Amino acid sequence: MDATYEPGTAPTSGDGPPDPWSGPTVGELGELEVLDRVTRRLPPGTPEVGPGDDCAVVAAPDGRFVVTTDMMVHGPDFRWAWSSPEDVGWKAAVTNLSDVAAMGADPTGLVVAIAAPQDTPVAVLEGVADGFRLAAAALAPGCGVVGGDLSTSSAFTLAVTAFGDLRGLAPVLRSGARPGDVLAVSGELGPAARGLARLFRDGVDEQGEPDAARVVQSGADTDPDVARQRRPVPPVADGPRAAAAGATAMLDLSDGLAIDAGRLARASGVTLGLDDRAAPAPAPDTTAADGPAPDGTAPDGTAPDGSRHGVVLDGPALHGGEDHGLLATFPAGVALPGGFRRIGVVLPRGGDDLVRGGTAVPTTGWDPYADWDGVAG
Amino acid sequence: MDATYEPGTAPTSGDGPPDPWSGPTVGELGELEVLDRVTRRLPPGTPEVGPGDDCAVVAAPDGRFVVTTDMMVHGPDFRWAWSSPEDVGWKAAVTNLSDVAAMGADPTGLVVAIAAPQDTPVAVLEGVADGFRLAAAALAPGCGVVGGDLSTSSAFTLAVTAFGDLRGLAPVLRSGARPGDVLAVSGELGPAARGLARLFRDGVDEQGEPDAARVVQSGADTDPDVARQRRPVPPVADGPRAAAAGATAMLDLSDGLAIDAGRLARASGVTLGLDDRAAPAPAPDTTAADGPAPDGTAPDGTAPDGSRHGVVLDGPALHGGEDHGLLATFPAGVALPGGFRRIGVVLPRGGDDLVRGGTAVPTTGWDPYADWDGVAG
Repeated sequence: MDATYEPGTAPTSGDGPPDPWSGPTVGELGELEVLDRVTRRLPPGTPEVGPGDDCAVVAAPDGRFVVTTDMMVHGPDFRWAWSSPEDVGWKAAVTNLSDVAAMGADPTGLVVAIAAPQDTPVAVLEGVADGFRLAAAALAPGCGVVGGDLSTSSAFTLAVTAFGDLRGLAPVLRSGARPGDVLAVSGELGPAARGLARLFRDGVDEQGEPDAARVVQSGADTDPDVARQRRPVPPVADGPRAAAAGATAMLDLSDGLAIDAGRLARASGVTLGLDDRAAPAPAPDTTAADGPAPDGTAPDGTAPDGSRHGVVLDGPALHGGEDHGLLATFPAGVALPGGFRRIGVVLPRGGDDLVRGGTAVPTTGWDPYADWDGVAG
Repeated sequence: MDATYEPGTAPTSGDGPPDPWSGPTVGELGELEVLDRVTRRLPPGTPEVGPGDDCAVVAAPDGRFVVTTDMMVHGPDFRWAWSSPEDVGWKAAVTNLSDVAAMGADPTGLVVAIAAPQDTPVAVLEGVADGFRLAAAALAPGCGVVGGDLSTSSAFTLAVTAFGDLRGLAPVLRSGARPGDVLAVSGELGPAARGLARLFRDGVDEQGEPDAARVVQSGADTDPDVARQRRPVPPVADGPRAAAAGATAMLDLSDGLAIDAGRLARASGVTLGLDDRAAPAPAPDTTAADGPAPDGTAPDGTAPDGSRHGVVLDGPALHGGEDHGLLATFPAGVALPGGFRRIGVVLPRGGDDLVRGGTAVPTTGWDPYADWDGVAG
């Protein structure tokens, strides 16, 4: 068998919990035993028909359902040297739950396909299942894994598909933002990217390869940003709240605020203007002092709705991905629901997707094909 | 990048259509260009919201939907040396459509996640997309690919999730067979396994590795069984027909009639008795001549419902997988719908899952973890 994962790069146990990288392998136990061990640790949810038949049957109360799918591959998407099996299951679950939330939908179920090298200890799959259970309990109680598939591959791979219910509301698309709407964000901006940068700096060996021991030795293991890179905490409940509050557009911040804002701007045919609270207030003699800045922010930094939440849009917050916050637009005057904070305003379409203080903000980001060099990711 | 797929093992063009193993690679083109090229070749279907947002939105007319997911990995599940990109897309589509049909549901949509090595020509992904379009047109018109995901992996991987609508009927589970029901099958039995055997015999080089040139040189390329291994033709429309006719249990024959019959028997708590038409009729002086055989077949080979369809359950038909026919049970006296043929009867649970002529039929089959040796499969 071609092997692209190296057990030697996986964490080894110290004084912590039992080492998942030991014990019987999936090849030794066979599909039925592995399925049984994994299934019993997954969140069951309440499907009409659960795992074990040709299909699951899931309720779709309003006669529609939303669906999203996402694949995570060892190497480009995660490294065992940096993430525990629980971390990987958690991340696979929440990235999909966040996409469901970004339509304004309540998550109603997940299906999970996993392909593992035959020499993967079954404890690793059990840990992944635990991650799904923990994530569902924390962010989408009642949302279960209703079905799945187990296969073999030289590269450990998870494919997750998630469903949601719109509760009779229209789905909140990327294309609905209108000039004058308020631009707001819910969830964290930056920690996942800062955590990844920390891992690339402190969690690699002399050859630049991910190294679990270095993560621990450097203290990166207890860095809150690293924790967020391993287990992002998307504001899943804020998606349905935004829909109920009348959000005109919304998307999941998977690749970073700037690139995802660019997507929303192009889909809606608008320009998004970021408030520029970090910048010094314009001098009274500038033309901007005569009225709101192009981004709608008054010269004293107060937004048109009077809010001054003070979201600091520094580099990691603007360009760092994987926090899976929600970016949404709301009609002016709407009380922002849940954890949403105003960060700007929707402008008529100009020459740029995203501007701040009259200056274009680059809306570039990560391309999984063009940028992956086999380690970075 | 670790590479487990060897471009050298892929087919090279002769006088046939343009070689998909040439031209720009996904790494050269980047995600957006690849997505654009692939998406426009996929069957669109008629989702309320299609690809391009965080989620698709699919109708679920009766307030429920069925869902199944399946992963196909280069190596254990297919080989480029033996299958064209169109073949792979076709097979990924129909194996999932068959699972939807096996619940009695009409397919309503698919989502597809693909992870490709960066050096995969984009024409390969286009060919896979063509396979999805051809399969949907042939077996589930109107069922589109409503969403997807593109990633990188050292092993070409597809994860397909399919949905279906039950039209107000109860899902047909594996567990509903009752003694006295008729056991019937729709679809082909055996050709996919015979085709695979042919490829293992004639389509390998001296080291036993799949070799595209040998497939052509040996004539296996034009073997109808090889065609079925590459593009199985499940009787998708017969699933909803069976549900409408009152089928009590049903499943998709993915691993072979015997192993899948064993699953249905155990789930239903019954024994399945195969008609034994291939066997000589019992001599008049046997006890069996006094009444029906344990499998319900009369001594002259006529089934209780009078049918003598003459399904020949030889080795490949009993134990060969990947044809994706449908195995179902119907109340006695029901006119079998569509392409269903009687093959036996449901008996009270005895000591075995499956019997023929009073003898147990082994219900063993293929285990993706225990049996894969890196080439076989």
